[in-house]
Order: sequence, then C-alpha cells, then structure tokens
Amino acid sequence: MEKEKRTEISAFGEFGLIEHLTKAFPLRNTSSVLGVGDDAALISNEEHLTVVTTDLLLEGIHFDLMYFPLKHLGYKSVVVNLSDICAMNAVPSQITVSLGVSNRFSVEALEELYAGIQAACEFYKVDLVGGDTSASHQGLVISVTAIGKVKPEKRVLRSTAKKGDVLCVTGDLGGAYLGLQILEREKQIFLNQPDMKPDLEEQQYIIGRQLKPEARMDMIQQFEKAGVVPTSMIDVSDGLSSDLMHLCKQSNLGAFIEESGVPIHPQSEQMALKFKLDPITCALSGGEDYELLFTIDPRDVDKVRLMADIYMMGEMVDANDGIKLHTKGGNIHELKAQGWKHF
Amino acid sequence: MEKEKRTEISAFGEFGLIEHLTKAFPLRNTSSVLGVGDDAALISNEEHLTVVTTDLLLEGIHFDLMYFPLKHLGYKSVVVNLSDICAMNAVPSQITVSLGVSNRFSVEALEELYAGIQAACEFYKVDLVGGDTSASHQGLVISVTAIGKVKPEKRVLRSTAKKGDVLCVTGDLGGAYLGLQILEREKQIFLNQPDMKPDLEEQQYIIGRQLKPEARMDMIQQFEKAGVVPTSMIDVSDGLSSDLMHLCKQSNLGAFIEESGVPIHPQSEQMALKFKLDPITCALSGGEDYELLFTIDPRDVDKVRLMADIYMMGEMVDANDGIKLHTKGGNIHELKAQGWKHF
Repeated sequence: MEKEKRTEISAFGEFGLIEHLTKAFPLRNTSSVLGVGDDAALISNEEHLTVVTTDLLLEGIHFDLMYFPLKHLGYKSVVVNLSDICAMNAVPSQITVSLGVSNRFSVEALEELYAGIQAACEFYKVDLVGGDTSASHQGLVISVTAIGKVKPEKRVLRSTAKKGDVLCVTGDLGGAYLGLQILEREKQIFLNQPDMKPDLEEQQYIIGRQLKPEARMDMIQQFEKAGVVPTSMIDVSDGLSSDLMHLCKQSNLGAFIEESGVPIHPQSEQMALKFKLDPITCALSGGEDYELLFTIDPRDVDKVRLMADIYMMGEMVDANDGIKLHTKGGNIHELKAQGWKHF
Repeated sequence: MEKEKRTEISAFGEFGLIEHLTKAFPLRNTSSVLGVGDDAALISNEEHLTVVTTDLLLEGIHFDLMYFPLKHLGYKSVVVNLSDICAMNAVPSQITVSLGVSNRFSVEALEELYAGIQAACEFYKVDLVGGDTSASHQGLVISVTAIGKVKPEKRVLRSTAKKGDVLCVTGDLGGAYLGLQILEREKQIFLNQPDMKPDLEEQQYIIGRQLKPEARMDMIQQFEKAGVVPTSMIDVSDGLSSDLMHLCKQSNLGAFIEESGVPIHPQSEQMALKFKLDPITCALSGGEDYELLFTIDPRDVDKVRLMADIYMMGEMVDANDGIKLHTKGGNIHELKAQGWKHF
C-alpha cells in the first residue's frame, strides 16, 4: 500500500495555513464585499456595510485559567473581536458567543465568565444576539463572532496603504506581553511553593494590559470627529512586527520605523530590563496589545498630530526597501515576524 | 471558610443554561431586531434583515471521527448552520469558519475537511468570508457562523404561531438517528474485531441522513414561489418532540399531532424494528434530521397541499391542552422532550 502523503501543519504556520485552506473559495454573492484575509468580513447592506469577525479561544492555547480570572476572560474574549471590527474603522454593534464547557465548571463559574462578557457589552454598547453552550470533554472553548457597521466610504482595509503614507500606532506596545511574563513567573513559583504569595510588584498597568485589554473604539470615534480616514489599518494582536508585515504584504509596500517613535510604557520598559529583555524587542514581538496600527495620508498629519494617544513612528516605502527599524543607536535592522506561534 | 456555592450544569440542561446565562443582556441597538432565543439573530440593515447564527462542534461530543469522514464533517458543519438560517425563512449568503486542531491532524486531513466546507458553499451558493485556525490540545473544534438575509415582512419566528394553525414538517424524521445507531454498532464491532468488514446493510439512505444532511433551502424557495409565509418555524435538530416544545413554549400554545401524519422513511421504519425500537419514538426523539417544522394559516392549506415533501401532521391548540400525540392505535400520549443531552 502506498504511504499516505502527510504534511505537518507546522510547515505552514498559522497564517499560511488559513490562506492555504481558503484560497479555493471564490466569493459568489455581490453582497460579499470582502471575505477572508482582513480583520473582518464586509457584507453590503444598503447604506451601511455589515462587518463580521470571529475568534476561537481555547483553554491551554489562548488562556491559562490558573492566572486568568473567568470574568476577565469573558471580557477579553469580546474585546479581541471588537478590536477587529474597529480595525475596519467600523463601530461594533452585536456579538454572538458559543461555549464548550466540561463538567469541571460550575454554573457560578460560567456566570463569572458571562459577567465579563456583559461588562464588555455594556462598555462598548454592543448586543449579545446569539450563541449556545454545549458540553466539552476538552476544557473551556469560547467562540465569539462580532458584527459591526461602517459607511462604505469609511471602511479601512489592510491593503490600501500608499507609498509615503505616515505609519502610526495608538497607545503603547509590549505591555500585554510583559504582563504575561509576570503571571507566568508567579505561576511557576506557585507550582513550586504553593504557600508563597504572588509578587505582582505593583505592576498593575502591564498586568491589566494582559488581563483586561480594551478595543480602541475611542480612536474610531476620534477619527470620525477629526474627519480623518486612515489609508490602511490593522489591530496589533500578533505583535507589531507581524501585524506590520501583514499590512505591508497586503498593500505591497515596505515600511521604515524609527525606534524612538515606538511607544513603550515606562512600566513595560522597567519590567523588560528586569527580565533581561530588550524593551523594543518586547514592543515589536509581544502580542495582544490590541492597539491600532494604521497609515494616514501625509496631508492628514496636522489633524492626527493633535489627537491624544497616537504616535507617528514611520513611513510606508517601496516593497523593495523591505521593512526596517532605525534604532536609537543609528543602526538599521530588518524586521522579522515573531508573533504568537501556537503550532 | 464558607463553602463556595456550586450548582451543577446538569441542573439546568442545555437550553435552560443558555437562557439562564443570557437573560441579563438587554438589546441596546435598534438594529438588533432579534437576539438570543430563536434559530438565528436578526439585524436590521435597510431593506433586508441580516440573519446571523453560530454553532460550535466539538470532537467526542458532536462527532466521532472514527466513523465520520472529515469531508462529510466539513459539509455537515456548514449545513447545520444554514439550516438555522432557513428556519427564519431566510436565504443564507455567507459563513465564517474557525478551527482548533491538534497536531494529530495533517494538512491533508484539514484539506479534506475544507473540501466538505467548500462543497456545501458551492451547493448552497454561500461565501466563506472569515474565520481562523489555531492549535488545540483538545481534539478538533469547529465553530461556524452563518449569515443570511430576508425581507422584514417575510421573516418567520418561533414565537408567532396562532391557535388553529396547521402544523407541518418537511422530509422525513428519525433517519439520522437510526443512521447513527448503525454507525455506532459497526464501531463497537470494529473495536472488538478489527478485521471485520463493516456491515452497512445497504442502508445508504439513513446513513446518508446522518453523514450528509441537507438544509431545506429548497423549501424556502418553494414558499417564496407559492407566496406562502409560515406563521412560525424551527429546524428539527434536537428531535421533533424537543423542537415542537420550543415552538409551543415560545408561541404560548399547545399542539396536537397525528402519529399517522409523521413522515418516516421505509428504511428508517425497517431499521428501527431491527434495533427493536419503536419507529415513531425514533421520529419523535431522534435528532439531526435538519428538516423544517412549521405552522401555516389554515387559509394557506391549499397552497401547501400541492408542495412536494411537505406533510401536515397536526394543529396548534391552547397551551392548557398540552402537546399530545394521537397514536395509530387511538391512544393519546403527552409528548416529552427527549432531545440530545450532552451534559
């Protein structure tokens, strides 16, 4: 008997795999304005586009219940989806949530999870409109779909940056990753000495970045107020390097970043040094900050300069010029994707 | 220390649990026309309503890969969602698919799964517009969200049946359950004697009902052509008894069914007897047929009478009169929900 062909999933990596698996699917309906390959799907519905995105969160892969409180997990499960809606310059309006739960969880535990989901619904003014729960042999499984809307002329893709556009980012980067490092360290200490109290070193800010991230809906509202439409946008979920690479690849461009322009919170900087990590590496490769990475037309620079919490850190260049970082020391480094690798 | 309160999930059951967990979520956006509690959510978008539904399928709970070919599984994962869209009298247009897969699966295995998803997309003319894959420690996890559209005046809910409406069902019932019994039997035989060839007894029809169900989009098209709008509708996924109970509860009515009016395929009938099961019990309690259970205004009876594959089997009555089956032997039985219980 001929041996069955077997290619390991790891040969593709997370992004290559979904691209590989979905490339044979044509779009058939004129209402399917945009399918797989951006932060969310766009569906034409008269005046507005309906925006749909979905994420699957699995215990042991995307979260560790040993240090992730269920309420925070519920909140974050919603936020990561709303962040994708925002990355289209759209406003989220509905979510659906499906759960798989083993009998290890009590109703009270699930109530905690839903309390977090509810808190997110309240804060972002979105409605839970569907979903179900079923049993699981396999720990906790959370699937969230988010829906939003945007006027067709306001939707922002990954693929529409132009050469010469200014590259910007909101908030600060690397904090969520460093928060995770603290939680992982305390988990190991706890496993070795269960009577030790966790030492969170008053790093509330960066631990909060990991345990209670926010979607930058405030930025979408700021853009609207200021009359700015970014030329391209993506949310920073995998890490600045990875997500910038998506933007560049889909816009068929390169990028040039100034290290001094990359926003890093003082607590992140201190904690990186304590862990003997380079702060800029944490900012480039740490994921889960859920900030917005976007480009603007140079003519819009004056509008954006006055907006709070936005940092201009570089420029879009020819694809041939690659994706490069100009360090504070004056060196130039080629950026490599080092996002989350689950496989 | 006070003992933490712990209620077992089993105390609620599958439907009670999601009701319990979601009851505190108000609908905030005027565009959220209908949220949790029906087959799908409705979102107002100008002329049409956008219809959204989602389902989570977990290995070992919803499917057994020992006898469920991956291609069929991909097809079925889509169909079960499209069936929910149809149950709103809507036409499906888009899906998103998220996968969690362990490294036990090869790329070829996932290609098989996606080949099935693609076949369903082609057959039903829907577009895959989103989703992702991630690693899983937990076997195969499949999350599908389906989106469709319907004119507001054509949408059909579970809650809008009227007393005196005629209760109808499409296709035939119990086949998928009996197909599953054959597959389970052959699995046990194989586990005991791996060199035995499976004896599927040429029961292609009922095995096909389990392995390759279809959503009744053809019925939605028939309704449109005939100018009929059912007064209420639900798809038969949990079993006729369970799903009729949902319809009755949400419409605040009872129902009366004639056993002789419940459609059962001859192969299902024979196989039930072979398994020493009562065919009507299989039709009432077996799930996964994905037929449509609906009610029509008595004035529409003549239109429906001429439509292929539709069976009138009863009538909606006062809630006080309960949900009852008039057997062929002349007896009257109160129906009880005996759908799938995963917890």
